[in-house]
Amino acid sequence: MSAPVWSVDPRTGGRREPVTTEATSTDVDRAVRAAHGSRVALSDRTARARFLREAAQELERDRDRLVSVADAETALGAIRLAGEIGRTCGQLRAFAEIAAAGNYLAIIIDHADGTATPPRPDLRRYKIPLGVVAVYAASNFPFAFSVAGGDTASALAAGCPVVVKAHPDHPATSELTAAALARAAERTGLPSGVVQLVHGFEAGAELVRHPLVAAAGFTGSIRGGRALFDAAAARPAPIPFHGELGSVNPVVITAAAAAERAERIGTSLAASVTLGHGQFCVKPGLVLVPAGPDGDRLVASLARALAETAPNVLLDSRIRENFLRGAAERAGLAGAWAPVPAGADGEHAVRAGLLTVSADAIADHDVLLEECFGPITVVVRYESAEQLSGVLDRVPGSLTATVQLARDGDQQADELLTRMREFAGRIVVNEWPTGVAVTAAQHHGGPYPASTSTFTSVGATAIERWLRPVAFQNTPDALLPPELREANPLALPRWVDGRPCA
Amino acid sequence: MSAPVWSVDPRTGGRREPVTTEATSTDVDRAVRAAHGSRVALSDRTARARFLREAAQELERDRDRLVSVADAETALGAIRLAGEIGRTCGQLRAFAEIAAAGNYLAIIIDHADGTATPPRPDLRRYKIPLGVVAVYAASNFPFAFSVAGGDTASALAAGCPVVVKAHPDHPATSELTAAALARAAERTGLPSGVVQLVHGFEAGAELVRHPLVAAAGFTGSIRGGRALFDAAAARPAPIPFHGELGSVNPVVITAAAAAERAERIGTSLAASVTLGHGQFCVKPGLVLVPAGPDGDRLVASLARALAETAPNVLLDSRIRENFLRGAAERAGLAGAWAPVPAGADGEHAVRAGLLTVSADAIADHDVLLEECFGPITVVVRYESAEQLSGVLDRVPGSLTATVQLARDGDQQADELLTRMREFAGRIVVNEWPTGVAVTAAQHHGGPYPASTSTFTSVGATAIERWLRPVAFQNTPDALLPPELREANPLALPRWVDGRPCA
Repeated sequence: MSAPVWSVDPRTGGRREPVTTEATSTDVDRAVRAAHGSRVALSDRTARARFLREAAQELERDRDRLVSVADAETALGAIRLAGEIGRTCGQLRAFAEIAAAGNYLAIIIDHADGTATPPRPDLRRYKIPLGVVAVYAASNFPFAFSVAGGDTASALAAGCPVVVKAHPDHPATSELTAAALARAAERTGLPSGVVQLVHGFEAGAELVRHPLVAAAGFTGSIRGGRALFDAAAARPAPIPFHGELGSVNPVVITAAAAAERAERIGTSLAASVTLGHGQFCVKPGLVLVPAGPDGDRLVASLARALAETAPNVLLDSRIRENFLRGAAERAGLAGAWAPVPAGADGEHAVRAGLLTVSADAIADHDVLLEECFGPITVVVRYESAEQLSGVLDRVPGSLTATVQLARDGDQQADELLTRMREFAGRIVVNEWPTGVAVTAAQHHGGPYPASTSTFTSVGATAIERWLRPVAFQNTPDALLPPELREANPLALPRWVDGRPCA
Repeated sequence: MSAPVWSVDPRTGGRREPVTTEATSTDVDRAVRAAHGSRVALSDRTARARFLREAAQELERDRDRLVSVADAETALGAIRLAGEIGRTCGQLRAFAEIAAAGNYLAIIIDHADGTATPPRPDLRRYKIPLGVVAVYAASNFPFAFSVAGGDTASALAAGCPVVVKAHPDHPATSELTAAALARAAERTGLPSGVVQLVHGFEAGAELVRHPLVAAAGFTGSIRGGRALFDAAAARPAPIPFHGELGSVNPVVITAAAAAERAERIGTSLAASVTLGHGQFCVKPGLVLVPAGPDGDRLVASLARALAETAPNVLLDSRIRENFLRGAAERAGLAGAWAPVPAGADGEHAVRAGLLTVSADAIADHDVLLEECFGPITVVVRYESAEQLSGVLDRVPGSLTATVQLARDGDQQADELLTRMREFAGRIVVNEWPTGVAVTAAQHHGGPYPASTSTFTSVGATAIERWLRPVAFQNTPDALLPPELREANPLALPRWVDGRPCA
């Protein structure tokens, strides 16, 4: 008998209902084989675009129930969750368009050239799906980074069936979402194998090792993600593992910006730190504030706003304990001061907090450069450009780096933007890193540990993770896939003999 | 004192000269830091395009000496080596054009949209160089896959400085090539750090672990490549490792093709198997030939051509020993027959060979599905479509898969091409896999072990291995890199709000 999987209410710590059981080895194998068996059906770009659109509709039809169950499991609140479903449906539809348009196929055709030395054969290249993709759902986005989230949508758009490993924080939501996807598959004539769902820690570990799994996407902690990355790399045949493992998301406030609008920065920063109860991977976790009175005003206003933030319930008791332990550990460091102490509020909620340290303290305490998941941020006061630079030298790979500059020119701007490129995947100016727009130009990734690969997990180019090129040499036209035939019967964008040909 | 590095003549086994010494840890660190220090100079696309063109010129100026030294070290012959220098210079110039044209920057601009839900910020994305790239030179291409080869050219084009680990088969050629690159750097005003050279097994192992090395490219054996891949994955911060580890390059001869032109296929296949003395990664190593008289004629003609091939000297004595051992091991298998036995010819040369087995033997002998480097191929006789299919089921990831079809339609064609896509990176019809054209549509890669990544190591898109995206959000125009500014001052191809904008 495998262990039951319970839906838990983080607001009470109580069990809501047994949802299903943890997947056994046999279950995982069956799920992967069902997914693998759906590859041919999924190879039709039009069919999968239709499926993605239908999936969005199914989620919308079930929105009220999904919001209510997800809120009961995550305590994220109905407004946020309804918005997240909207985003998730937007992603599904965007990837339907991407699948249908076919730019991602990256078709290149070089005609034969008998006059070249050596003579060149006819070569035609496009990208094909890698195979079954394992998706590890995130705790903090029960929809947008879970069963029907961006990893799943982009993998399906690429033509890859998906096996999702559900996050234990929202098993009931995961099952409801999977049921919506199954209805969409049935309605569009695809086998239900296109998206499979498994639960359980061991199932997740087995999934990444399954011989028929061809790639994996993950959003979560460094510890969990690194273990799966290592397993993916240690396979007899290693597979790409696209993991987004965490980020401290440094923010630099220049002296000129602090002088110009200390209070506004402090207040809006507090809103970014506490958005989603501080449980976003792009939460600003390390804020560099100039020493002196302008910086003091900024910190005071940040502190005030954080102190006024209502206590909130985090996603689960383990995350809550880690948050309280992490906040206490940091507050106990030599030189640290907690003007607004993060801490427990009753048995289940927590209060947002703020910690300030001097720039020198960073050199002694690596822990300050690690993500502390939850509503807390660390303010580092710097005395000089050299001190600021010294801290930036130590910042690990990050999803984002944010800078608040004076509106009318800021002499620190150029150097800061150049520096930030070295360690971040997205640079944000005079806004905040939370709120990751789902567009073509988005990049949600960054040097390790922000990501284990060079790809994005949000936005149009996330599809590139699930493809590999294949080239056809000297192949008779009738035997080529339609995408590569001379007459371009599918009217796809292509590069032909070095020129774009739309 | 570190060990001397000798140039060895494989035709005699004798030492030619001591070239240099193996790099110590200090040497490796110095080389990586020199490379790292040249990044800013290399960030100018025009400067590095000029450097790549100048490097090609320097190699051409030194062509006679390079050919003579490389021939003395590799026994590949002057004609082949002169041709390889031509290809190498072609690659350098092609990547100069790619750097200058800037398509590889993959610029995407999404303007702000305040009417969207939620409102979208201005986002601009392009690709930046990863950092220092470690290149592991190949034994079998002293120019095209070595110090100034495709990995180096594509990395430099991307803006990444390179540290090359020389192959021990051609240290003197490597030093001469590095000197040519250093002259080109001097002439174009770049620091000599842009390409550094180290020798020695331990140096190679240290290189992939160096904290400032950001990615690696490798061409060689499964054993060596996998060890380095594992080291790259086990780093505190893992890095992309693009390894091309070997391939059996299966060939299918259909019954109709054998009936149509058995002798021509046999003879031209022999030429492909023995090209470069069988030392190409795309050598056809497993040939599926129908049972029956047409197949018999094909095998007879292949055997005759191989028997008539003059003995040749392989790259080094270790490769020769592995070849002789591998050939003997395969010939000793139950059910195997060697109509033309591969073997030693005198003390330094080898004779090309052919082995035939029945399709059933493949099921018992995994070794037949492994690459045997050198002038030998394994012919598998199949009795039926089912037997053919059973063998294809067991073929590991391959760089290429080749099919010889009847000219005027072949009923096996569709199914074979579909199957081959599953395990190969390039499909070749009625030609041979040797001769890898350097064009935009080329794909030289394939499922593991052909490659450890989904990228190509030959052709224009090889540059994609050395880049990562970075996005700028809400950044004032004057602070953006010129590539992303609204007015497009560098006249680069870009996607703006979902449309190409050249």
